Amino acid sequence: MEGDADTRRVWVIGIGAGDPAWMTLAAVRALETVDVVFVFQKGDDDELALARRSLLPEGVREVVIEDPPRGRGAAAVAAWRARRVALVQEAVAAEAGEAAFLAWGDPSLYDGLIDVLREAGLGVRVVPGISAVSALCAQFGIPLNRVGGSVLITSGRRLVAEGWPTGVGDVVVMLDADLTFKRFPEAEIYWGAYLGTPDELLLSGVVAEVSDEIERVRSEARRRKGWMFDTYLLRRAAPG
Amino acid sequence: MEGDADTRRVWVIGIGAGDPAWMTLAAVRALETVDVVFVFQKGDDDELALARRSLLPEGVREVVIEDPPRGRGAAAVAAWRARRVALVQEAVAAEAGEAAFLAWGDPSLYDGLIDVLREAGLGVRVVPGISAVSALCAQFGIPLNRVGGSVLITSGRRLVAEGWPTGVGDVVVMLDADLTFKRFPEAEIYWGAYLGTPDELLLSGVVAEVSDEIERVRSEARRRKGWMFDTYLLRRAAPG
Ligand SMILES: C[S@@+](CC[C@H](N)C(=O)[O-])C[C@H]1O[C@@H](n2cnc3c(N)ncnc32)[C@H](O)[C@@H]1O
Ligand SMILES: C[S@@+](CC[C@H](N)C(=O)[O-])C[C@H]1O[C@@H](n2cnc3c(N)ncnc32)[C@H](O)[C@@H]1O
Repeated sequence: MEGDADTRRVWVIGIGAGDPAWMTLAAVRALETVDVVFVFQKGDDDELALARRSLLPEGVREVVIEDPPRGRGAAAVAAWRARRVALVQEAVAAEAGEAAFLAWGDPSLYDGLIDVLREAGLGVRVVPGISAVSALCAQFGIPLNRVGGSVLITSGRRLVAEGWPTGVGDVVVMLDADLTFKRFPEAEIYWGAYLGTPDELLLSGVVAEVSDEIERVRSEARRRKGWMFDTYLLRRAAPG
Repeated sequence: MEGDADTRRVWVIGIGAGDPAWMTLAAVRALETVDVVFVFQKGDDDELALARRSLLPEGVREVVIEDPPRGRGAAAVAAWRARRVALVQEAVAAEAGEAAFLAWGDPSLYDGLIDVLREAGLGVRVVPGISAVSALCAQFGIPLNRVGGSVLITSGRRLVAEGWPTGVGDVVVMLDADLTFKRFPEAEIYWGAYLGTPDELLLSGVVAEVSDEIERVRSEARRRKGWMFDTYLLRRAAPG
């Protein structure tokens, strides 16, 4: 929210999880008011950073923050986070005027940006965006939850650690490099990769029947493009 | 998805959960291509139906479908659903040209529309929208989930029935008329009503400390406006 009067505030603008037309009018208008946009980028070849950049109105200065490499283990992750905070502080201090950070999809979902900005002592004004979860359901033309039912949004790793919770019929899995869906052969899966982009891939069916195909399509696409962004919904016949 | 060649297809357009500027460019463009927009409405005084209507471009025909009253109990709900399907079939059959249904927020989340349209034998093309979940997080400027953590989206009734699932740190509650948050006095709550509208209300804190105030503000607003739309996030200090 607001923060102190002397806290510098920056925009965090959700740009949607794929299709540039998933930008909201609020995002477009916010971008029109800013002088500088910060973009985190991992190397030149980051296709997402390029996609982000194509959304910028003319005249907006773009400042690329090279995302520092992240090691494995708690200490390395903590160091990476601290490094990001420092980079943000430096970058923002160097620029006067109205500033924005672009966030892929919805800024609230599996994106550390808001926490980093707050740790950097900045206030945030967030423009919500279309998440990969909404995108997945839209592209399949399906509801996320069954009537009155609940939905779990989780990562592959968490789903393995915690198992499928009782009473939940629908589980959305993000950030999964391990084909975790294979553990639920009886569930229905709606799998989508590169949602909303020209490379979009959609596959669905009973896991036992489609899992080999998803695995094959996924690894081919990954090889071809060099990166993979996929999200899937697992539905169980009856919650429980 | 596509459906048979002779299946009539209609748009389902997510318009966002409050602020008209949360419409996406894709929603605006889809609306520009349609001839007729169907709006479900409960009585004249339905403020949401009015809000929807204000988003329509000029020249688009608007057809109001009076939402039939819904009784209590499984049989009454089934009859209500069947009646809605019949009303949709009639309404769509009576209109030639490109047709759209508007959905509040994101069409995939707690909205029976997609199911009704499919039962009516229609194909759907869905434009995703900003859900009340994304809206809530944006207005508070907070992330939905903790780093790598999972999120449950549920209804008040379900949360009572199933309890807080193990391993989940963050729970979003929608469709709750029963102040279910009171059962979790130690949790942090981020409560938002009429998000993205001029009547927006935001309250947050530890449930034990803010629950009386939320109850008071909620019932006053409800009395004043005649209806209430609220969503809240409950966060537990540590997942488990
Ligand atoms: C770091 S998270 C960011 C999520 C983003 N904030 C959102 O709202 O969707 C990245 C993960 O989001 C999912 N994702 C994002 N964009 C996607 C897309 N276009 N297609 C499929 N999955 C996507 C994938 O699960 C990916 O591993
Ligand atoms: C029938 S559901 C529709 C949800 C919608 N499809 C979405 O994506 O947000 C209605 C519930 O959504 C939540 N909701 C919708 N709009 C809201 C708003 N502007 N402020 C707070 N809650 C809202 C409330 O929990 C309400 O009971």
